[in-house]
Amino acid sequence: MSKNIEEILQSTDWEIEPVNLYKPISYALESGGKRLRPMLMRMACELFEKNGSIVENAAVAVEIFHNFTLLHDDIMDNSPVRRNRPTVHKKWNTNTAILSGDAMMIKSYEFLQKVPQKYWTKIFPLFTQTALQVCEGQQLDMDFETADNISLAQYFEMIRLKTAVLLACSLKIGAILADADDKDADLLYDFGIALGIAFQLKDDYLDTFGDAKTLGKPIGGDILNKKKTFLLLSAIKHSADDINNLLQITIGSRFINDSKKITVITNIFKKLDIPKICEEELEKYYSLAINYLDNISVEEKNKTELKNLMQKLHIRNY
Amino acid sequence: MSKNIEEILQSTDWEIEPVNLYKPISYALESGGKRLRPMLMRMACELFEKNGSIVENAAVAVEIFHNFTLLHDDIMDNSPVRRNRPTVHKKWNTNTAILSGDAMMIKSYEFLQKVPQKYWTKIFPLFTQTALQVCEGQQLDMDFETADNISLAQYFEMIRLKTAVLLACSLKIGAILADADDKDADLLYDFGIALGIAFQLKDDYLDTFGDAKTLGKPIGGDILNKKKTFLLLSAIKHSADDINNLLQITIGSRFINDSKKITVITNIFKKLDIPKICEEELEKYYSLAINYLDNISVEEKNKTELKNLMQKLHIRNY
Repeated sequence: MSKNIEEILQSTDWEIEPVNLYKPISYALESGGKRLRPMLMRMACELFEKNGSIVENAAVAVEIFHNFTLLHDDIMDNSPVRRNRPTVHKKWNTNTAILSGDAMMIKSYEFLQKVPQKYWTKIFPLFTQTALQVCEGQQLDMDFETADNISLAQYFEMIRLKTAVLLACSLKIGAILADADDKDADLLYDFGIALGIAFQLKDDYLDTFGDAKTLGKPIGGDILNKKKTFLLLSAIKHSADDINNLLQITIGSRFINDSKKITVITNIFKKLDIPKICEEELEKYYSLAINYLDNISVEEKNKTELKNLMQKLHIRNY
Repeated sequence: MSKNIEEILQSTDWEIEPVNLYKPISYALESGGKRLRPMLMRMACELFEKNGSIVENAAVAVEIFHNFTLLHDDIMDNSPVRRNRPTVHKKWNTNTAILSGDAMMIKSYEFLQKVPQKYWTKIFPLFTQTALQVCEGQQLDMDFETADNISLAQYFEMIRLKTAVLLACSLKIGAILADADDKDADLLYDFGIALGIAFQLKDDYLDTFGDAKTLGKPIGGDILNKKKTFLLLSAIKHSADDINNLLQITIGSRFINDSKKITVITNIFKKLDIPKICEEELEKYYSLAINYLDNISVEEKNKTELKNLMQKLHIRNY
């Protein structure tokens, strides 16, 4: 990622009054993360041979918005740890996390306003629509925790909203700032949706089959939160009635301790070959993404960086 | 207020999926309230003899933003009742209130984007800066609950941020949309700051000396929440050491029940003539507001509506 974006995110501008509002924001932003959305925005811009530095403020806006959603999601999911550190609502308290999150969301608009004004009419509606969709995705994710009979189609719609649209929006903003034509900008958006869905599938996979230290958070959170992940929904779809009952009873039980619950569910997933099914689904969405990328009217060599990033995301274990 | 604004606020647009995200928003917006900010925006616009209907979308944006802050503030203050109905976090739950509030804030930008684009460069930065200041004010308000030695100057800065800037912003947006010149728009902003401070002083007064049914919420909430209101800070300033100690001990005590606490503190306020001191302070800010209004370069008769509204706000008991 560009050194400037990291500098802006971690700038001392946050060290202002009131400290209890801005210190948690600085804490949330200094902890790094993949900075995937700024990276995608810069790459999208450079795809059209425009210097990526023009995306700086919009990239900061999207990254702050993303971290705002993590901050509020962590309250709602009662998550204690993110990126190997206590979450804001654990380190401070829920009220602080609510209000600092609110301020972050507004800050993201503040940075968006630093983009040259001729781009505002394209970028503002896209950003606002995306932000609203991310909220809708989070609501569906929470609704699904207590709902029965969630279909894979509903799952894919939920992760499209919760995860994919913000990646797609980042890419499209990059294209807009590079003065790409509308058709290419839309193709890049569709590329982002496919990439985002693959990204979330991998996230689902890692939450159960990853390594706590590399991930920066405990393994099995989705299982304990009764999340309707791709793993669980596929397991329900591919299992006979008896296994299906065992799955549902184990997930819903208050009498099985957390680590036992995670072990039992993980073993069922393995027995049903869910990791392989997940891998095949991932491949499907990566192919779809590649397909959109292939149709963008720039030279092949310009696409190498995005293709390499996809490869890196595919094999990631964090 | 314009019928259209009320219609937009209560429109069936909110009845969309996911229901658990949008139903609480509709609930929060249908409960009325004074709609003071939309009213001020329209009056500001009409002050310059432009038809007030142009402010509709911006007025809806500001009103949704205001209701978003109430929704999140009610979580933070653990308030059970607003406008004679359960607050969103009580009727649903905290997670719902957090996320629906987030969506409301984004919705306010969505409505702001419906304003003709030629006004965007003036209105967006003003709105965003104001929104951030409101968060800062809320943080200071919370910080003050556990802080000692808060001065009246600090109190006035807190209510300027928490309450006055949004009234001032509403007025200034009205002026901008009426194509008023910058000097007049700024005078109207300053008028709004003075009016907003008077408005909050009256709110402080009513929270202790008002009527629960007319107000739509229980009396004494500020006392129980240890809020550093104008009443309390003035009482501390005007009382001898023994009364001062009694005040601080009563407010901080865990062993005095709520209704007793409210009675004791209210009686001390009365004995110290705080209602009168509050009234004098109110007069001061109303005069200041009138002064700014007098300097705006439009015909006197155009100012009647705003002056009447001020009078109504002054004598209100809700």
